[in-house]
Amino acid sequence: MIIHLRSSVNSQEASQLADSIKAFYIVSDGKNVLITGSGLKEVPDLIADKVDEFWVFPNDIQLASRKYLGKTREVNIGNVTIGGDSKNTLLIGGPCSVESEDQIRNSAELLVGLGLTTLRGGCYKPRTSPYSFQGLGLEGLKLLSKMRDEFGLNVITEARDATHIQEIIEYTDVIQVGAKAMYDQGILRACAKTNKPVLIKRGFGTTLQEFVQAAEFVMSGGNENVILCERGLRTFETGTRFTLDLCGVAWMQEYTNLPVILDPSHAMGYAYGVPSLARACVAMGIDGLLIEAHPDPSVAKSDASQQLNHEQFRQLLNSLRPVAESVGYKMV
Amino acid sequence: MIIHLRSSVNSQEASQLADSIKAFYIVSDGKNVLITGSGLKEVPDLIADKVDEFWVFPNDIQLASRKYLGKTREVNIGNVTIGGDSKNTLLIGGPCSVESEDQIRNSAELLVGLGLTTLRGGCYKPRTSPYSFQGLGLEGLKLLSKMRDEFGLNVITEARDATHIQEIIEYTDVIQVGAKAMYDQGILRACAKTNKPVLIKRGFGTTLQEFVQAAEFVMSGGNENVILCERGLRTFETGTRFTLDLCGVAWMQEYTNLPVILDPSHAMGYAYGVPSLARACVAMGIDGLLIEAHPDPSVAKSDASQQLNHEQFRQLLNSLRPVAESVGYKMV
Amino acid sequence: MIIHLRSSVNSQEASQLADSIKAFYIVSDGKNVLITGSGLKEVPDLIADKVDEFWVFPNDIQLASRKYLGKTREVNIGNVTIGGDSKNTLLIGGPCSVESEDQIRNSAELLVGLGLTTLRGGCYKPRTSPYSFQGLGLEGLKLLSKMRDEFGLNVITEARDATHIQEIIEYTDVIQVGAKAMYDQGILRACAKTNKPVLIKRGFGTTLQEFVQAAEFVMSGGNENVILCERGLRTFETGTRFTLDLCGVAWMQEYTNLPVILDPSHAMGYAYGVPSLARACVAMGIDGLLIEAHPDPSVAKSDASQQLNHEQFRQLLNSLRPVAESVGYKMV
Amino acid sequence: MIIHLRSSVNSQEASQLADSIKAFYIVSDGKNVLITGSGLKEVPDLIADKVDEFWVFPNDIQLASRKYLGKTREVNIGNVTIGGDSKNTLLIGGPCSVESEDQIRNSAELLVGLGLTTLRGGCYKPRTSPYSFQGLGLEGLKLLSKMRDEFGLNVITEARDATHIQEIIEYTDVIQVGAKAMYDQGILRACAKTNKPVLIKRGFGTTLQEFVQAAEFVMSGGNENVILCERGLRTFETGTRFTLDLCGVAWMQEYTNLPVILDPSHAMGYAYGVPSLARACVAMGIDGLLIEAHPDPSVAKSDASQQLNHEQFRQLLNSLRPVAESVGYKMV
Repeated sequence: MIIHLRSSVNSQEASQLADSIKAFYIVSDGKNVLITGSGLKEVPDLIADKVDEFWVFPNDIQLASRKYLGKTREVNIGNVTIGGDSKNTLLIGGPCSVESEDQIRNSAELLVGLGLTTLRGGCYKPRTSPYSFQGLGLEGLKLLSKMRDEFGLNVITEARDATHIQEIIEYTDVIQVGAKAMYDQGILRACAKTNKPVLIKRGFGTTLQEFVQAAEFVMSGGNENVILCERGLRTFETGTRFTLDLCGVAWMQEYTNLPVILDPSHAMGYAYGVPSLARACVAMGIDGLLIEAHPDPSVAKSDASQQLNHEQFRQLLNSLRPVAESVGYKMV
Repeated sequence: MIIHLRSSVNSQEASQLADSIKAFYIVSDGKNVLITGSGLKEVPDLIADKVDEFWVFPNDIQLASRKYLGKTREVNIGNVTIGGDSKNTLLIGGPCSVESEDQIRNSAELLVGLGLTTLRGGCYKPRTSPYSFQGLGLEGLKLLSKMRDEFGLNVITEARDATHIQEIIEYTDVIQVGAKAMYDQGILRACAKTNKPVLIKRGFGTTLQEFVQAAEFVMSGGNENVILCERGLRTFETGTRFTLDLCGVAWMQEYTNLPVILDPSHAMGYAYGVPSLARACVAMGIDGLLIEAHPDPSVAKSDASQQLNHEQFRQLLNSLRPVAESVGYKMV
Repeated sequence: MIIHLRSSVNSQEASQLADSIKAFYIVSDGKNVLITGSGLKEVPDLIADKVDEFWVFPNDIQLASRKYLGKTREVNIGNVTIGGDSKNTLLIGGPCSVESEDQIRNSAELLVGLGLTTLRGGCYKPRTSPYSFQGLGLEGLKLLSKMRDEFGLNVITEARDATHIQEIIEYTDVIQVGAKAMYDQGILRACAKTNKPVLIKRGFGTTLQEFVQAAEFVMSGGNENVILCERGLRTFETGTRFTLDLCGVAWMQEYTNLPVILDPSHAMGYAYGVPSLARACVAMGIDGLLIEAHPDPSVAKSDASQQLNHEQFRQLLNSLRPVAESVGYKMV
Repeated sequence: MIIHLRSSVNSQEASQLADSIKAFYIVSDGKNVLITGSGLKEVPDLIADKVDEFWVFPNDIQLASRKYLGKTREVNIGNVTIGGDSKNTLLIGGPCSVESEDQIRNSAELLVGLGLTTLRGGCYKPRTSPYSFQGLGLEGLKLLSKMRDEFGLNVITEARDATHIQEIIEYTDVIQVGAKAMYDQGILRACAKTNKPVLIKRGFGTTLQEFVQAAEFVMSGGNENVILCERGLRTFETGTRFTLDLCGVAWMQEYTNLPVILDPSHAMGYAYGVPSLARACVAMGIDGLLIEAHPDPSVAKSDASQQLNHEQFRQLLNSLRPVAESVGYKMV
């Protein structure tokens, strides 16, 4: 249940009321808001006369539910807006991994040259083998940060586990919670305590319900700037790396109020299919795309097969613009 | 291996050569063609001096392979062309099941009014329970046939098993092999003996490799008018009915030479997501769409939740035209 | 709903009552029985005074439901009984495909030497490629039949599609409906018209609910001698060929009244894991096992990697006996 | 590649050699061992004259590979041994969550009364909703620790994320890495720095290859006391909670040298199927079982449906003993 308390209730009292019914307490849009589990279907007598408005839900998708807020929430990334009334589809580009200053500057220049605003690059790689390249770590974060200062770009990178989440929060403009880390409450609870946008990737074995509940961890902890990112399910099909779940995207657009960004690069796993798949994504009227591009994919230290080269990235953007327009959106 | 025999080899001799190496023999585009398993990597001495050209393959996707034929094959459905250089996206509409003459005429009128050409409707329903509505059978086929005569539409319906395949072939313009029947060699071999287009739906548990191999059954038997139809995989996600595999579509467009038609209705399972998903499909530059529409979905005898009503179908078509144009295609 | 009619109702009247409420009519254990869809929750007035007893169900698992019949049904295969009070675990052995008279006689001798009774061997192989070995067809059936006559064995082989189901019914003692054919109503309806036991394999993408509903097709058509066979699901895991669903076996034992036979050979796909997996199956107190064995697996024309050689098969049986005993069963 | 250095190389030199070829360095069984990625197929010249023995691998399963060590490693949990030549199947019991001192003492008494040695109980629950019971945390750890002191039991509990891994290491005898946390390098690397046994649960969307690579993180970091735990895959089947992958267990027994413990409770999700499934597991000759039992499952704060009551647990153990014996093992 979500409860909006009356404006006469001050924050100290709100906090006490929350404790009394074991609810989360957040301040949202200037209002004092309590959130309990969805099992609660009636307002407790204890607080009945303090309640302005309340919403009952069939399951634990509450703050993220379209029944609570009937439109997509607006999230600001630097001076770019997605969601709300913006009709913007944000194209985030950059390499799988930050590998060197030259490489990441090359990527930054590509984006700036195309009028784009947001640079991605992995620093803590969630590799499944200890014997693979694990990313540059803090050194990579500093390189991203340098690009931000030099080029005025927003940067996004992925948190792998809770041991370095504070560094990620400090150095990035959008915190990415990786597909393998999205159940990590250490990360989610840390993200709740900042106001920076948090992009949560859906695990490849994660149901839509569980996925949105991960967002509820961040939102009920006080940070409502959450973005959902679909990046493919692990299915029996091995001809492609994963299976991008666009049925799930239609579901998210119907049932949740969070912006949706898609990652066709990881889903496909092969550069040849990324442009076609990206056009499919954009035609759904989505809030953004994550596309991996590398100055020279053949020498990339991770995900070599799925990264576009820079010329392919340029052509992709050109082909996406008319698709976005055909559904009333624009690429930014 | 695919072998084009020299033009000096007549059909009787070709047939004998085929027997001698246990190959399939078809006549394709005026040429005598032999096809063996892909295990054969060198031309047998026995026929070496009869060979004009030959192709070796890494697996049993051969006639359908883009390495054999480097562009999408052209398939004609009545006077409409898909594939080849047509850049047409064929919108096939109609109800899940043919239920009555009134109902199917209503559907036919919808299509004609929108300038569309191809009517779908199930007659032999592959229901998983014996206690559900099983379709009108032959009576339904005759109703579809009547609509063809009355309105000049092409009709398509699904074969459920081999016991009624001859009726389906006789009464329809495109033979649909259902997702649950696509391993059915009784159906596939019967389809190979006609020249009518055959639309094969991918099973929800079927790999891309197996799917295209089902097409090879029909093609190696002599009918190259095959269309592939993706309609969703069965995954762990139950928020939607199936998971439409657009990564797989990118794969088919890269590796096969067959037209691809998509069925977002069955994949999604819910009408709310069909328009958005259909736009995603069209943005991939596909050869067609199958969309279920019913005059009154609420009383439909099967798949009530996923069928659009006629007003929704009209709006869908309007929204699809600019998307198709944005990728250089047109809706027909 | 299942309805037992009063003993005063004769078969002609029973048939008319069935028509009047659009029910299936079968004679079971000497009683006239009507079956409608599970949507029917109250006895129709039309037949109220003819009803002796009735059962209401939450879904279309009815004749196979343990709520209808609280114990496992007894099925007789030649003079061997499974299910009922027998506590027998039937070990069915033999090659993937019947390849020659020598080969299948070798297999028959193995079984007879071990005191076993039931010989398997594929004749119509449901291969996914037209370019693979498709089985000996009718010739294979005749070889199996010859072994039956020579050795007194029961034989079982698989129907691939409806075009040859009558031959299968004629030549075998147990009709096997393959995993790729289990939705095939042509096959299921033909099986309903015989009294021979029908072993239905679960499709690798088939839910438990759908699986048991396939049995309902046969049972509601008049043949209650149905056996369920689990043989592995297709999952994302590719280290093994399929994933044997023993959770599903526990479910079948709880909710259905049909004997359960397991096929670890197809599930595992590799001979090394078959014995260990077979022991796991037997420890669940099951009604039978299907194990592929070949005189020389290395030259088998299909499924070479998963077939045991005859020495391995003998050792397997020896290791299974104490496991069966430990749960109160015996290998037969 | 795994390299055993000559005994003449001291630990300081070993460490320098490791750095020189970017290898992991551990001391195993008194030997200095270097491990590089499996991409390395030949011993680098740089260290050639320091090498005693080396092993090359096709993939990054190395220390855990049966090609490296041809038998199951021995792991000691308190004074109980699993793996090695022990032929022990360790039955670990206890509630899903530690809820109160009374409850966990009740569980401890059950185990002691049955002659069992190892108590499980969750303290940090990896719930997917922020609105569910999250476990008692440190308070729960202290209760488990108290039971250890009082009853001489070994205790095991699950780490949810890296923020509390040190507490878990401190308070438990076996560290459990949960299915949702097994990609968590913060946890895995911390586990590498202790000598306590680490039980890693396979993620429900995790391949066997990735699963064993998680063990490689711990082992290559210096702790070889790793146990693999299979607990069910997430598949399309929803009749049971997960699908226990016993094909995968056969694979692990063939290709790895690590003890294998199975968790049928989480796989099944329903108490009715747990005993039957547990017998299947034991018949495979496994090293242990994790079974959830609660003094009164109906009031459990998590996983109520799958926990056995204490009488069921007793009966289960009785039924497991003869099964274990039938394959040459004993329950401990």
